[in-house]
Amino acid sequence: MKALVYLAKGKKSLDERPKPEIAAPTDAIVKITRTTICGTDLHILKGDLASCKPGRILGHEGVGIVESVGAAVTVFKPGDHVLISCVSACGRCPYCRKQMYSHCTTGGWILGNTIDGTQAEFVRIPHADNSLYPIPKGADEEALVMLSDILPTGFECGVLNGKIEPGSTVAIVGAGPIGLATLLTAQFYSPAEIIMIDLDENRLEVAKRFGATSTVNSTDGKAAEAVMKMTGDRGVDTAIEAVGIPATFELCEKIVTAGGTIANIGVHGVKVDLHLERLWDHNISITTRLVDTVTIPMLFRTVASGKIDPALLITHRFKLDRILEAYETFGNAAKTKALKVIIEA
Amino acid sequence: MKALVYLAKGKKSLDERPKPEIAAPTDAIVKITRTTICGTDLHILKGDLASCKPGRILGHEGVGIVESVGAAVTVFKPGDHVLISCVSACGRCPYCRKQMYSHCTTGGWILGNTIDGTQAEFVRIPHADNSLYPIPKGADEEALVMLSDILPTGFECGVLNGKIEPGSTVAIVGAGPIGLATLLTAQFYSPAEIIMIDLDENRLEVAKRFGATSTVNSTDGKAAEAVMKMTGDRGVDTAIEAVGIPATFELCEKIVTAGGTIANIGVHGVKVDLHLERLWDHNISITTRLVDTVTIPMLFRTVASGKIDPALLITHRFKLDRILEAYETFGNAAKTKALKVIIEA
Amino acid sequence: MKALVYLAKGKKSLDERPKPEIAAPTDAIVKITRTTICGTDLHILKGDLASCKPGRILGHEGVGIVESVGAAVTVFKPGDHVLISCVSACGRCPYCRKQMYSHCTTGGWILGNTIDGTQAEFVRIPHADNSLYPIPKGADEEALVMLSDILPTGFECGVLNGKIEPGSTVAIVGAGPIGLATLLTAQFYSPAEIIMIDLDENRLEVAKRFGATSTVNSTDGKAAEAVMKMTGDRGVDTAIEAVGIPATFELCEKIVTAGGTIANIGVHGVKVDLHLERLWDHNISITTRLVDTVTIPMLFRTVASGKIDPALLITHRFKLDRILEAYETFGNAAKTKALKVIIEA
Amino acid sequence: MKALVYLAKGKKSLDERPKPEIAAPTDAIVKITRTTICGTDLHILKGDLASCKPGRILGHEGVGIVESVGAAVTVFKPGDHVLISCVSACGRCPYCRKQMYSHCTTGGWILGNTIDGTQAEFVRIPHADNSLYPIPKGADEEALVMLSDILPTGFECGVLNGKIEPGSTVAIVGAGPIGLATLLTAQFYSPAEIIMIDLDENRLEVAKRFGATSTVNSTDGKAAEAVMKMTGDRGVDTAIEAVGIPATFELCEKIVTAGGTIANIGVHGVKVDLHLERLWDHNISITTRLVDTVTIPMLFRTVASGKIDPALLITHRFKLDRILEAYETFGNAAKTKALKVIIEA
Repeated sequence: MKALVYLAKGKKSLDERPKPEIAAPTDAIVKITRTTICGTDLHILKGDLASCKPGRILGHEGVGIVESVGAAVTVFKPGDHVLISCVSACGRCPYCRKQMYSHCTTGGWILGNTIDGTQAEFVRIPHADNSLYPIPKGADEEALVMLSDILPTGFECGVLNGKIEPGSTVAIVGAGPIGLATLLTAQFYSPAEIIMIDLDENRLEVAKRFGATSTVNSTDGKAAEAVMKMTGDRGVDTAIEAVGIPATFELCEKIVTAGGTIANIGVHGVKVDLHLERLWDHNISITTRLVDTVTIPMLFRTVASGKIDPALLITHRFKLDRILEAYETFGNAAKTKALKVIIEA
Repeated sequence: MKALVYLAKGKKSLDERPKPEIAAPTDAIVKITRTTICGTDLHILKGDLASCKPGRILGHEGVGIVESVGAAVTVFKPGDHVLISCVSACGRCPYCRKQMYSHCTTGGWILGNTIDGTQAEFVRIPHADNSLYPIPKGADEEALVMLSDILPTGFECGVLNGKIEPGSTVAIVGAGPIGLATLLTAQFYSPAEIIMIDLDENRLEVAKRFGATSTVNSTDGKAAEAVMKMTGDRGVDTAIEAVGIPATFELCEKIVTAGGTIANIGVHGVKVDLHLERLWDHNISITTRLVDTVTIPMLFRTVASGKIDPALLITHRFKLDRILEAYETFGNAAKTKALKVIIEA
Repeated sequence: MKALVYLAKGKKSLDERPKPEIAAPTDAIVKITRTTICGTDLHILKGDLASCKPGRILGHEGVGIVESVGAAVTVFKPGDHVLISCVSACGRCPYCRKQMYSHCTTGGWILGNTIDGTQAEFVRIPHADNSLYPIPKGADEEALVMLSDILPTGFECGVLNGKIEPGSTVAIVGAGPIGLATLLTAQFYSPAEIIMIDLDENRLEVAKRFGATSTVNSTDGKAAEAVMKMTGDRGVDTAIEAVGIPATFELCEKIVTAGGTIANIGVHGVKVDLHLERLWDHNISITTRLVDTVTIPMLFRTVASGKIDPALLITHRFKLDRILEAYETFGNAAKTKALKVIIEA
Repeated sequence: MKALVYLAKGKKSLDERPKPEIAAPTDAIVKITRTTICGTDLHILKGDLASCKPGRILGHEGVGIVESVGAAVTVFKPGDHVLISCVSACGRCPYCRKQMYSHCTTGGWILGNTIDGTQAEFVRIPHADNSLYPIPKGADEEALVMLSDILPTGFECGVLNGKIEPGSTVAIVGAGPIGLATLLTAQFYSPAEIIMIDLDENRLEVAKRFGATSTVNSTDGKAAEAVMKMTGDRGVDTAIEAVGIPATFELCEKIVTAGGTIANIGVHGVKVDLHLERLWDHNISITTRLVDTVTIPMLFRTVASGKIDPALLITHRFKLDRILEAYETFGNAAKTKALKVIIEA
């Protein structure tokens, strides 16, 4: 089968690889119909993730059709249309039992990382019963690819951890795909203000279209001042970090109000300065989270009832045999204005 | 009246000062019967707190008897025995309305800071109705001085923010009076393990007597390794910082388990390193808090029912005219083994 | 001044009464600009409420302008435009300290009940600092009358107690003004389905316009069957009782799913049957609540940001001297299609 | 093998039955070492539970040693010492995913109810990975039998649902084994008062020994008055129903304070009167729950750390071949003073 393989730092190729097979009774083999590329895939290609070794098929998102199942799989059968969670969950370890699937002792984020992933014609899904979700008949399957990772990530790590509530004031730092997914799901809770902060004017325009009540272009290094002015020097109830560098996290520290929350989504490569000399008496919370995808069923219902349209995030489409071009497009978002690119397998 | 006055960096004296008077209809004048000295008072004397100006009467803890009340005070009348909260609360501003008294727009921590405090024969208490608490007949008033600040601080900033629950594993970094108050109140929730960490062997002995299940002397710089070993490399559910320096906060970062909480109590003077490159996917919470004293009524009930004995924290007693000696004793705790010193006015 | 006075069971009149005066230093006198009539006022007129004695000026909702304040009022001054909460709160008793203003030991629902109310040219507001709310310049003051009682009641007793969340399924039993206020505020949390149940086809039409995803006319006594069919025999996550009779509460018992919540808003005059023989193992919660109006500040922000339009609830307008006609219109809602009627004073 | 079999209303016998076999790949066969009898077993014998058919081996509690496992069982292997949960959980259905194991679509309470149970030499455990718990070496296995059902039931349905907190006031109606298990686990949260109510003076004596701060013998029908007097007419924050009849539930309605909680544990056979005409404005919660046993891991840790001694509940011991005598003893608790009887298999 065709598959996108990580070869070495900076190198990938579209290769022919053997079709995966059931390896454990809880496995399923899924024929991929749609997958996508994540910012994390770009990180892997830069050589940033030691856990992902050369030779790995990338990809941890997608929808498809169950091809075969192991003897212990009871929820799914061949022919079922399924959504693949980016996180595999055994459902029985201490972490899974408290819905912290991200830290499943034999799962977590392994797809396209420590085992082969979804940017291929077929993928093996471990712990299939707890890691796949049935797609209802008639659903827009392409749009549901957004439920594999990006929407639950924005919702769980940003919106839920950020304790957004009706009438509250929110700032989202970073208007990339994750920041925009956060923006879309934040509106489930009817905050009064959502201030979107980014360097890219195009993305800020998109943010406005997606529901941001105001935007701040942080190119001038004065985003904190702008937010404090907008909020009457009060700051925001929730500051969401959706970039992953010290400057953006420290911006959140500057704009969070007393009693507020900083919800980190960004994948950080270096430490940040935490200004406890100013924040120790500020009664704030800071949260970090690798997505658990525990809200996928809830997100399914919000999509089905039209509370959110995940297809808004899709800007480009490619066939699997042109996935290298898809990577090119996704990797040059400033120029291509790409948000999420769909790969049809 | 006699009063302990902050004169200048490093200088204090026991002076004669005019008795305070009702300045607003919501004020009360309280005759102090017992007060105490807080670690924060030592910080002020070092010149660390710009908000507290020379000439200020120090002290923000104590019990006493109401001497007179303003026209708008309805809960208290002269002769009532009262506990003084270290935090004054108007009860009507947006912060007070969500029980965040620490940030009351006309109150908060002002006693012995921006207005004269309790280390005197009398004190003026603003917003008396919401800042004093009636002492039931027959209570041990001296022990209740611990409810002005130290017990609610340990309980709110450490125990509640740290989400301690039955069977959980807790580490408290710092076995000074605040750390020990946290240790005492942590036991309200029956954690399985409470590991106490400090440099001072005497304080660790006290911690064992107060209910710590194990102790770590961190003199050798290997406390993190010791805690990880004790917890089977899992770390602790709750790590409580009760010192206020980078090294102890960063120790908390090392020992908190995935899904756990770091609850900061310490007053920090400089920034700390937050290792998001390791913690971004660790699903943790970090909390900061200036005590709101909103749990004083709850703490009263735990004292009345014998769930906690605040008198355990009291090691020395002095008359007000020997308060300079009390400061000496409290300031040399390593030698004197002082925890809390009671001043009888 | 003119005032609507409850005379005896079934009797009321528009009388001339003395203008109220400051009686306590925490009082304010408010000149009413707009008030309204509540279903509870009709109950009083039927003689259902023993607490409300003949001679009482009715009304517990409204907006106005502060005329004078007592010596201890610090938040408001003459000339301020204010919203009146239906619940008076001292801000200092044990109930107020936990934001349960409804049970304030010297307040709670007293206006137009145990003290004179708002259906008059002026009203005395006890505990003014905690019972009035400033109206921002330029706000639609008439619409804000809905924040005195009906919107916080629907939101606190129905939506918050009912734990509505994104994607959940909700049924609201009763499409009168309170049920419709619940419907409007339920949408803050983006539930997937809101099923509205009533006997009155007009009100069900209004409900659809206000955002109900489906409606059930319960005239045939088969509402439970209809809801179970709509939900694939699962029932609803949240069933909200907004009528106040046994039949409607018991309908909620029939349609709540395992793990769900019944949130009671209705004012009940007689006991209901609780079918514990069926519900003991159903893992449900049942809540009751007299509104605390603690969410008024949050509701102000949702109105200011356009998340809700309270004016939708207003169907009729009358001058104060025609208030008897207003009562007539409001009391015959089936015919007049009245929801809330505004009285201009 | 020997097994206690339910024959017909009022009839049981100790029979020879075939040893169970693995029927699904997720099954385990467990050799029982210790089991016990539950009040529910007595209900079944009275013919009260239609779901349990004649011919059924009773029992849903116990510890044992894994004899064999199906192909999909990964957590356990033959020879492992295990605790059996009274509730079987697949870990993958919508209910299990929100930790509501009691309503697992292919599990829940089935042992000794719809499939053969634990009062036998061997038992087949479906969904073994999520329904068994490893017993640490050196643990008191007999005492752990209390973690199969009675302690999690008291803790989840009574203590957690009842939101007991430090300093709160609790009443437990019913001092049978479940009420006493609730009493033991309530103390994890350090309530100030626990009032135990029962008709049996012996059980009230036991309750005092187990930590009740006061007791009320309700024989005179004046328990409500007694509790109101004890609480200064305030009532209790948490009222726990641990009997299952209308009189005891209605007692809870009378003694719960405004803002409090009634947590139902009792298995009810008939409806109760819910006095909403008095409670509609009382801001209370009422909860029902079939135990989920989701707290078994937490309870393990409280036992291991000595926060609770489950062995306190064990009063009698019998060999399996004398189980009829054990039933006799357990069924005549008023005379035998039996709480829990251990059956050694």
